Amino acid sequence: MALSTVDKLAREKSIEILRKKFSTLVKKILEGKRPVLVMPKRVLTNTIYDEKKKLLLLGPEMQRRSFLDVNEARKFMQTLLMASIIYDALVNNEYPTIRDLYYRGKHTITFRDLHGKLHHENTWDEQRESDSVIRDLEVYLGVLREEMLILSKEKGKVVGNLVIKSGDDTIDLSKMGHGAYSIEPTPDLIEFKDVDAEYVLVVEKDAVFQQLHRYGFWKKHKAILITSAGQPDRATRRFVRRLNDELKLPVYILADADPYGWYIYSVFKIGSITLSYESERLATPNAKFIGVTMTDVFGDDLMRKILGNTKNKTLGDIPVKELLKLKPKKPYLTEKERKNYIIKAKQKDIERAVELIGYEVAEACIENKEMKSKIKKRKEGLAGYPWFKTPEWTRELCIFFKTLSKLEIEAMASKGLKFLADKYIPEKIETGDWID
Amino acid sequence: MALSTVDKLAREKSIEILRKKFSTLVKKILEGKRPVLVMPKRVLTNTIYDEKKKLLLLGPEMQRRSFLDVNEARKFMQTLLMASIIYDALVNNEYPTIRDLYYRGKHTITFRDLHGKLHHENTWDEQRESDSVIRDLEVYLGVLREEMLILSKEKGKVVGNLVIKSGDDTIDLSKMGHGAYSIEPTPDLIEFKDVDAEYVLVVEKDAVFQQLHRYGFWKKHKAILITSAGQPDRATRRFVRRLNDELKLPVYILADADPYGWYIYSVFKIGSITLSYESERLATPNAKFIGVTMTDVFGDDLMRKILGNTKNKTLGDIPVKELLKLKPKKPYLTEKERKNYIIKAKQKDIERAVELIGYEVAEACIENKEMKSKIKKRKEGLAGYPWFKTPEWTRELCIFFKTLSKLEIEAMASKGLKFLADKYIPEKIETGDWID
Repeated sequence: MALSTVDKLAREKSIEILRKKFSTLVKKILEGKRPVLVMPKRVLTNTIYDEKKKLLLLGPEMQRRSFLDVNEARKFMQTLLMASIIYDALVNNEYPTIRDLYYRGKHTITFRDLHGKLHHENTWDEQRESDSVIRDLEVYLGVLREEMLILSKEKGKVVGNLVIKSGDDTIDLSKMGHGAYSIEPTPDLIEFKDVDAEYVLVVEKDAVFQQLHRYGFWKKHKAILITSAGQPDRATRRFVRRLNDELKLPVYILADADPYGWYIYSVFKIGSITLSYESERLATPNAKFIGVTMTDVFGDDLMRKILGNTKNKTLGDIPVKELLKLKPKKPYLTEKERKNYIIKAKQKDIERAVELIGYEVAEACIENKEMKSKIKKRKEGLAGYPWFKTPEWTRELCIFFKTLSKLEIEAMASKGLKFLADKYIPEKIETGDWID
Repeated sequence: MALSTVDKLAREKSIEILRKKFSTLVKKILEGKRPVLVMPKRVLTNTIYDEKKKLLLLGPEMQRRSFLDVNEARKFMQTLLMASIIYDALVNNEYPTIRDLYYRGKHTITFRDLHGKLHHENTWDEQRESDSVIRDLEVYLGVLREEMLILSKEKGKVVGNLVIKSGDDTIDLSKMGHGAYSIEPTPDLIEFKDVDAEYVLVVEKDAVFQQLHRYGFWKKHKAILITSAGQPDRATRRFVRRLNDELKLPVYILADADPYGWYIYSVFKIGSITLSYESERLATPNAKFIGVTMTDVFGDDLMRKILGNTKNKTLGDIPVKELLKLKPKKPYLTEKERKNYIIKAKQKDIERAVELIGYEVAEACIENKEMKSKIKKRKEGLAGYPWFKTPEWTRELCIFFKTLSKLEIEAMASKGLKFLADKYIPEKIETGDWID
């Protein structure tokens, strides 16, 4: 069986890193010293939003895992067990997934304590536990799991004027017919050979991707068309980041006008909050949210009315003055279309939105008293994420709270694919009508 | 924008069918006759399992929808509204999805009754309603939605020695690098150009597909490798059926050893119970379940013990004699591996299993008294699906009920990809160790 050359090289590199890092540990043990692992603390309190880089990063706090500490021995052993399993897989040309790494390491250790009593202890019980150990190893080694040839399921698809090399094949992504190219789980091993495109359009929904693709959108508008098929996985995020970084293509995200869509944008742009260590490689800080925006649906008169009635000088963290200086926006939808297309937001949507922007904006903009008191009980004091604290996002969220409505991309497509593909998207890109 | 030739032809064909079918209706109206739609009844009681064809089919019952019947007028109008929206989309080179067909048709009709009272009525409220109308139309017209260029999200992927034509492109599915080819939502428009493969292996799980692909499984074993990424969508099912039908390739399904995996196999093979009208085109009656079987995990001694202790002459619908005549099976897993890999079945799994095989097998094989009485309360009298009533499936389900355990494919991969790719799968295929 001929394994691809890039895989071989990736293996050798990771084997070397693992060997080096752990041979110092072995040396310590041989010298009679206490074996200790030191690595950055992977907790929310050590997660920092870097304003300059516009990225979520791990902070400076470190954690120690000592073998000779009763509280740390279990984690220490788990880490070494997982490292040895991954090392074996690398050496044996295996391609494990995190699920089968869990199985590979799962067993019961039987031992007697000093009093002769028999004990049984599982290496790990749930995959949650082994996954956490894999993350620790990524941080400890400074290597992403993909570089260790750990595979995963993969939802991302792409078409466009882009020629890549993957494995030993050269693939023209403009020759996929009505289908698409499924991105590989190890996108760092892809080589970009040739590109003729002006931007990258990432569509949240696979069905809308299918429509735009079939309509020839990417040919006509010289775009690389990608779908994350919902919440983006690591490979799709890394692939998008590389297109932006290496090919200098602007990246636009097209998602539903709802907190779920905004969060998808946020994961592409800033990173996932629980996995901040990876965002330096996976996030695309330059990504823009092209729509669907709440102002595309409603315009922004509603916000201006609220601002006119308030005596506060700020809305959330944003001065009212700044909000009033925003360029006024007209909606793309008529009153009648709006009536047919919008969906009532659920309480969960509203709670999610509060998590993004903080409670103060919700407090100022929600009019429905019952909903307000429901949210207040659960979300009061919530500060929101710093990267949503811009005039544009504050306007978006305020209109969302005011109308308690959301809208799907499909509603825009139902005005005609021509409208979506030849007016809405290109017009928004040409006029710079996006949110950064 | 150059639309592909096959799309153009598909459009013309569907436009013609729609025009023909509805012009007879128009003629009736012009002649002063009552407009009525007559179509097969799309309900469970009119769903028949055809033992010969091994397919779920719609039975002979018909339903009438008359415009001049108060109870039927709404459905009649919905059907005509949807037909006209689909017709417009076809004529205007649109590619709608079922979601945007819902939006396109959603509006409020305002009218006064004979007493002058104002009424408001929505064309439809939920997508469930418009989806049902689309299904009615598929049955009425004898045309699948895909043939009317209605698109949908699509999860299926494929790699292998197969050259296809899709749209205007010729695509070599053996040249996808580490990625894969994403099947288009309209697989009937694909043309098979060249094939060099001995069988089709459909893997339930995308992550396992990635592993086998990366390992070079399909090259070494001359297979077309497909994943449905969970419950298969229509396009993946149709694509698999066409490979079997037109290229005469045997189809093997590799799924988890649990009721969810068995149901996935059942959908590929027989069709979906609620959408029986499509199974004549989408199901692959020849598909075999290659594993993971319960006997691969446990062997079949457990069933033989149960049969030895029972005084009944049948287990479910199968004579005990026939079960004892089955070729004895040895497990692929050692006692220790089993201990680490198996997962305890949840009550929901067990209920699902009863739905597949019927309550009698569960009654005879479940030993856990608490679980038995729980299931009894909810599932007593359930008969199960006829296509699971074979000695092989009865053995499988009996061992499942006896052990109340399930197992994922990943557990097999964790014994080593070599084991999964070079021993387990090829050995099972070579020795005919599958379930039909």
